[in-house]
Parts: sequence; structure tokens; C-alpha cells
Amino acid sequence: MNKLFLIFILFVILNQSIAQSKDETFIKQIFDKELTEGKSYEMLEYLTIKIGARLSGSPGAAAAVDWTRYIMNEYGFDSVYLQPVMVPHWIRGQKESARLLNSKKYGTIELSICALGNTVGTGPSGVMSNVVEVKTFDELKQLGEKGVKGKIVFFNRPFDATMVSTFAAYGGAADQRQLGPSEAAKYGAIGVMVRSMASSSTEEYPHTGSVRYLPNIPKIPAVAVSTKHAELLSKILKEEKDLQLYFETHCRMLDDAPSFNVIGEIKGSEFPGEIIAVGGHLDSWDLAQGAHDDGTGCVQSIEVLRLLKAIGYKPKRTIRAVMFMNEENGLRGGQEYAKQAELNKEKHIAAIESDAGGFTPRGFGLTGTEEAKTKIKNWKPLLEPYGLWDIGKPGGGADISPLAPQGVTLIGFSPDSQRYFDYHHTKEDTFDKVNKRELELGAASMTALVYLIDQYGL
Amino acid sequence: MNKLFLIFILFVILNQSIAQSKDETFIKQIFDKELTEGKSYEMLEYLTIKIGARLSGSPGAAAAVDWTRYIMNEYGFDSVYLQPVMVPHWIRGQKESARLLNSKKYGTIELSICALGNTVGTGPSGVMSNVVEVKTFDELKQLGEKGVKGKIVFFNRPFDATMVSTFAAYGGAADQRQLGPSEAAKYGAIGVMVRSMASSSTEEYPHTGSVRYLPNIPKIPAVAVSTKHAELLSKILKEEKDLQLYFETHCRMLDDAPSFNVIGEIKGSEFPGEIIAVGGHLDSWDLAQGAHDDGTGCVQSIEVLRLLKAIGYKPKRTIRAVMFMNEENGLRGGQEYAKQAELNKEKHIAAIESDAGGFTPRGFGLTGTEEAKTKIKNWKPLLEPYGLWDIGKPGGGADISPLAPQGVTLIGFSPDSQRYFDYHHTKEDTFDKVNKRELELGAASMTALVYLIDQYGL
Repeated sequence: MNKLFLIFILFVILNQSIAQSKDETFIKQIFDKELTEGKSYEMLEYLTIKIGARLSGSPGAAAAVDWTRYIMNEYGFDSVYLQPVMVPHWIRGQKESARLLNSKKYGTIELSICALGNTVGTGPSGVMSNVVEVKTFDELKQLGEKGVKGKIVFFNRPFDATMVSTFAAYGGAADQRQLGPSEAAKYGAIGVMVRSMASSSTEEYPHTGSVRYLPNIPKIPAVAVSTKHAELLSKILKEEKDLQLYFETHCRMLDDAPSFNVIGEIKGSEFPGEIIAVGGHLDSWDLAQGAHDDGTGCVQSIEVLRLLKAIGYKPKRTIRAVMFMNEENGLRGGQEYAKQAELNKEKHIAAIESDAGGFTPRGFGLTGTEEAKTKIKNWKPLLEPYGLWDIGKPGGGADISPLAPQGVTLIGFSPDSQRYFDYHHTKEDTFDKVNKRELELGAASMTALVYLIDQYGL
Repeated sequence: MNKLFLIFILFVILNQSIAQSKDETFIKQIFDKELTEGKSYEMLEYLTIKIGARLSGSPGAAAAVDWTRYIMNEYGFDSVYLQPVMVPHWIRGQKESARLLNSKKYGTIELSICALGNTVGTGPSGVMSNVVEVKTFDELKQLGEKGVKGKIVFFNRPFDATMVSTFAAYGGAADQRQLGPSEAAKYGAIGVMVRSMASSSTEEYPHTGSVRYLPNIPKIPAVAVSTKHAELLSKILKEEKDLQLYFETHCRMLDDAPSFNVIGEIKGSEFPGEIIAVGGHLDSWDLAQGAHDDGTGCVQSIEVLRLLKAIGYKPKRTIRAVMFMNEENGLRGGQEYAKQAELNKEKHIAAIESDAGGFTPRGFGLTGTEEAKTKIKNWKPLLEPYGLWDIGKPGGGADISPLAPQGVTLIGFSPDSQRYFDYHHTKEDTFDKVNKRELELGAASMTALVYLIDQYGL
């Protein structure tokens, strides 16, 4: 019996090491193939240079839907289809501007601004008033109607530079942009200017991003100002209180527009009912090409399927690339995808999102059962040779988050974060900011994880 | 006795956890301070924009010696001094050029080239001949004198893209540049063109770098060609064998010139005789500003001392920032530093070099005794929160390598490597390619390690 047990143990060990070595070999093949014959970079070039900006409801978004459907068909996925979804349709309109008037020391200063997404415009008459600077909603509350009514509120809380993860720093500042306009309107403000959500304090260009107006509160116009000008404005306000700020925006929200999530699929051979979804969001802000946000996530997701197919891998489970529509200013695509999954009684075992830029991979964030998380963490020895060491922190993604109630393990691809908020939602988020190898390493990392989930389930 | 032993164990554990927590706190302070009040970025701006290129023997190198001495004095280090060293003095001379002549299909094509460092020039008459392409020294040997004599040898072995570390890929290709000219001259070649040492195959600019002529073999002119033109040249050579290649360079080696290593020091309070050196190389190639190679390493090294001082830390051991001269085309500074250390019976316990770019930190490479390496690896829990997970692979640095025979633990700071060989030794290695936070995280990482070595020895 002892002898039999020993043989059993040896058999288990041997089996594990064969599996390990088979997985090691296959993952090496994934990386080698991507780094030598990858298509993610040329896909990104098309999506960013040829198509460019793709805000929900825009012609660019429609072109992106069309092209990603085309390219996934070209790559011969088992099925490619569109999932209809109505999306908000916000437009920036004609040229926007802002200036600080009547400074005794500086005269008139043009400020580098842009309208925040989903906001109402000022129209040609603009808004003009005194400015009151705050860093928190508490400060705003303390000022109350007396200090705020009829004024423009200037939210100026910077990123906390001591946070190593810039996403954590963003998390600590983004409430000003998302909710600041409604918070200020509660006390009678007539407009809002928000310091751009950026890592640097010396940037010359503004970062847009979405505003969420709270119900039953007046919708007031809101703009982002470059961090450089936020610093300047704050400095001048310390010296001169009685300044007039003027800004003018021509944005507006149109009726909801028809659009689509784009889905490509390779059918599983053993468990076709078990779905592993991998995706990014196809829409982008209107100011640039949406390269790191989130062209990279889209092309990496398509590349996962293309690469597995190119290697000749037949998945056991069904693998889907999902191009979510409208992450930026509504999340309608992510919500519709989860809704349809539930209606159609689909069983997703995992959903992976890449929406943190196309930088060098560092790991995966996880949300799910302890069992699933432990299983993924145990794959670390297979992934660490490729720089994927940071596996297991909480994570996921906006578009896949609506799948959470269905018990799906949510996984966020986590690349290096240091440069992300130099480009995020600005005119600088362009193709040339993406390094080919960094993008490819990300695509291969995602493919390796999808392979492991497909092999062993969760 | 059992009870006493238990108390002893508890005491040890308590002590360790107090130490852990003290170290954690101090390391957090280092990172916080650097990310909010760091000076590395402004130092780098001065060194790269105001001073710029600083090839050994050039006015730029002299200015860099002068300025780094000045700034370390400004920061109030205990002592700052120059260590004289004679360096090679190579100059590029007037405009260099190359063209492929008489292609039936393409006509005459101008090629993007630059002379390789330390090479002899062709003078105004240039060299012109047929081209023979090889990928290895073995191929060259097989061609022999019959296939090579009187010709220009074109070395065209690319980086192995499947290597995740681009330094490993560089290591697999750099022999062509370093030794290719002498190897080709053995068989009577009259000139050499080397594919640039680059990660990308589509770059439009060439990468310079040093050549080492072997003794008793004719010194023949040699240039680097952009990878894009290397690919083109190779393609044309497959179609048309009888092409003439012409290139012209005006570089030459002058007499050795006087220069200096620049050393700044904070004296240890308990063990002043034990030295921890941290450094980068002050010289750079002549084509750009020497930002990632190696302005970043220099300013990070100065920053280690400045930061410890700014925090009010009194080191137990002597900590030195060393600006090595002439890493690029001679290593005379590194050799002189080790020689003087031996002559003066100095005891270095560790030498850390930053010469892999100012990108996001990933870890430290180590060369030393098992005991020292284990000690450093055991600090990983303190360093991993800052992304320093890759600790313990073999590593060091060119400038500190001559210290090896003295039994010094050699440590190479290891940042993300993906973008390094896009800029290395090219006109693109400029200040704007360095991200402030990435640079600062590197400076803080080095400071944290120096702190731990200072606290606990090796």
C-alpha cells in the first residue's frame, strides 16, 4: 500500500511536471509568435491613424465597428457579430475657450481648457464670474450657498504623487471631475473648472473625461483646465481675489444613437457553453486617436484569438473578443453585454479587460472567489518569466463589471502605469506613444492567461 | 528554560518586526520625498539640454565634469573631488554619408548611416566596392579571403525579438559592431557596414557605438546603418549581386586627453572605511544628449546622496556618488577608479551602477558571494511594493566591473528594458524621452537599496 501510494505520488508529480513543461512550452510559443509575427501593432495603426477618434455616436465609432468586424472576419474567427446598443451622443461643437480677465499683475490670460464630456455648453454668451477655488467637496460645503452662488467653482486637488500606482492617484482625484459640477450646482455655482486628471503638474494641454450630472440638480457647464494653468490660476487667486473668469463651450447632448458592441468568437471543442471573454472598449474621446485608451486593449483582445488560431490551438472552451462600445461616457455597451449574457443564459467563466494602456505588462488584477483567485495566482511561475509578477491585487474593468452579479471571475490586465495619465483623454493619446514591443508583450500576456484558463478552468 | 526560550523567540520576532516596520517607514519616506520634492529631473534637464552630448575628450564632457562637481558641492556633500584619468579622444569630423550605387531597380539610394566610435575615417575619397552580406563571423570565415578581399562587409544579424530582455538581445548582436571590423579586415575587407543595434527593424536613424580593433590587423573604416536601410540593402542584394556601395567618414582618433571621474561623498559615522559606491557614466555619445545613456544614471546617483541628506539620514558607512568618465569608448574611468581604490586600500562593500536607462524600476541584478546575494534577496518584501520584484539575476555594470577582483558586491539597477534600444546611441536619446516619475522611482529605488546596505552591511 505504501509502495502503491509512493507510485501514485510519483505519478502525480510526474504528471504535474509534464503539464508544467507543456504549458511552459506553449506560453513560450505564444510570446515568440507575437514578438516576431504579431499583428497587434499594425491593427493599432489602422484603428488610430486611419480611423482615429471614435466617441460614441460619432462617424469614427461607426467606422471602428465596421472595421473590427471586418478584421475579425478576415482572421477567420468562427463567428463575428454585432450586438446593438443605444448610446449617448455627445458632441463638442465649435471651438471652446477660456480666459482670466483683469488681473492687475498679468492682464488677460488665455487658459488651456476643454469641455468635459456629457456637459451642457455655455453657448456663445459664455459664463463669466468670480472664481472660488476648492480642493474637496467638504470645503465646498463649508463655503455653502453664500460663498458659491453665482460663481465659477475651481476644483484644484492634484494627484497624490506619492502613490506608486497612478490609477490609485486618479481614483483619489476623479470625483472632482465626475461629480464636481453637480456638487457645485447644489450651492448655486454657474460653472465649474476642474484641474485636469494628470500625473504631471506642468502639462500644457487639458484632459477631458465624463461628468455625471446628479438628478434634480441644475446642469451647469464644466471644463477641464491644463495642470499648468491650474497651478497658475491658483497662484494668481492667492494674490488677487477679485478676478473674473470667462469660458465658452458649445457642446451638447443629442438624442441617443444606435451603435454596437462587436464580438468575435472561437467555439470551444469540449465545453462550448463555457465562455472566456477578453475585451477592450472601442469608443474613445474625441480629442485624439484613442491609442492607449483604449485602442491597445481592443487590438490586444482581437490578437488573443488571432494568435491562438495562428498557432493552431483548438480551445476547449469558447473564447470571445469583445469590443465594448461607450465605456467613456455611459458604459452602455458593458451593460448591454451583461444583460444579453443573462437573457441568453450564457455561462462566462472569466472576463478579462485591457483598459489601462499598452505599456509593459506587470500582472493581472483579480475579482472573484478565493478558489478562482488562488488558481490564477498558482500560475505565477509560468507567467513571471514574462514580467507578470503582480498577480492577485483587486482588479477588473469598467466594461466587464456588469458581469459581476453573474459570478464571473473578473480580471484586469495591469501594465506599467507611470505614463498613462500623461496621455489619458488628451490630444496626446496617439499611435506614436505606443511602443510595439510593449503592446505585443501585453497581447501575449493576455493570450497566455486565456490559454491557462481554457486548459484548466477556474 | 522553555519559557525563557519562548521569551527569547518572541523578543527576536518583535525586534525583527520593529526593524521591518522602521525600514518600511523609512523606505516609504524616501519614495514620498523623491516623488514630491525630487531633484533628479531638473538635474537631468540641465545635463542633457544645457550641456548635451559629452563624448570623452569633448567640451561637453569637460562641462559635465565641471557642473556635476558644482552641483554636488551645492548639495553640501561632505567632500567632492575629481579623479584624473586620461581618455581616448575620438571625433566624428565633418558630415558622413553613404549610398548604394547603380541599382537597376532603385537607381542610387542614400543610406542613413553614422561612423562607429573609435574607427578610422575614409577621408574625402571614401571607400567604394561590392558588398557581401553576412550574419555571423562563421559565415565570414567560410567566405574567406576569396569572398571578402577588397569588398565591404555588411553585418546584418538582427536582435532576437523573442528575448524579453532587450539587453539579452543586444548581447546576442553587439559582437558584429564591436569586433566585426577587425574580423572582416582579417580577410581583406576594405570597409564594414553594421546593422544598427536596435529592437526595431524599421528605424530610420543609425545607432553608433564603439568598435574594438584587434591588434595587428589593419584598421578599416566602419559605419552603422539604420535598421530600415539594413533591411532594404539586404532585400536589394538578394535581387542584384553586383552593386557598388560607397561611404565616406571623416572621423579620427586624436591623442589621449585629460579628463576626470567626479566623486561626491558622505562620510560614514560608524564605519567610515566601508564604502558603498553608486554611479553612472558621465560621458555619452556625440549624436544626442545622452539622456537614458547615461544622464539618468548620473543624476539618480547624485540624487541618492542628496535625498538621504535631505531626509536627515546620517549613514553608518561612507556613501559615494561616482560619475565615471569614458564608459562608451574605453572604460578608462572605471578602470582608474578601481585602480585608485586598490592603491588607497579602500574597502568597497558594494557598488551599484545605473546604466540601463531611466525607465520604471523592476529590480536589481547581482554579482557577489551567495551570502551577500541572499541578504539582498531577503529585502525583497521591503522593495516589492515599489515594483522591485526582479532581484537576484546576474548583473552589475561596465564601470563597476573592474572592482570585481577586490571582492566587491556588484549591483546593476534594472529598469524596464523595452524602449532602451529605440534610443541607445542615437540622435533620439534626448531629455523628452525620459518620464519624470519613472526617473524618480529609479532614484528612490537606488536610495532604498543603499539605505538597507548601509543599515545592515553585506
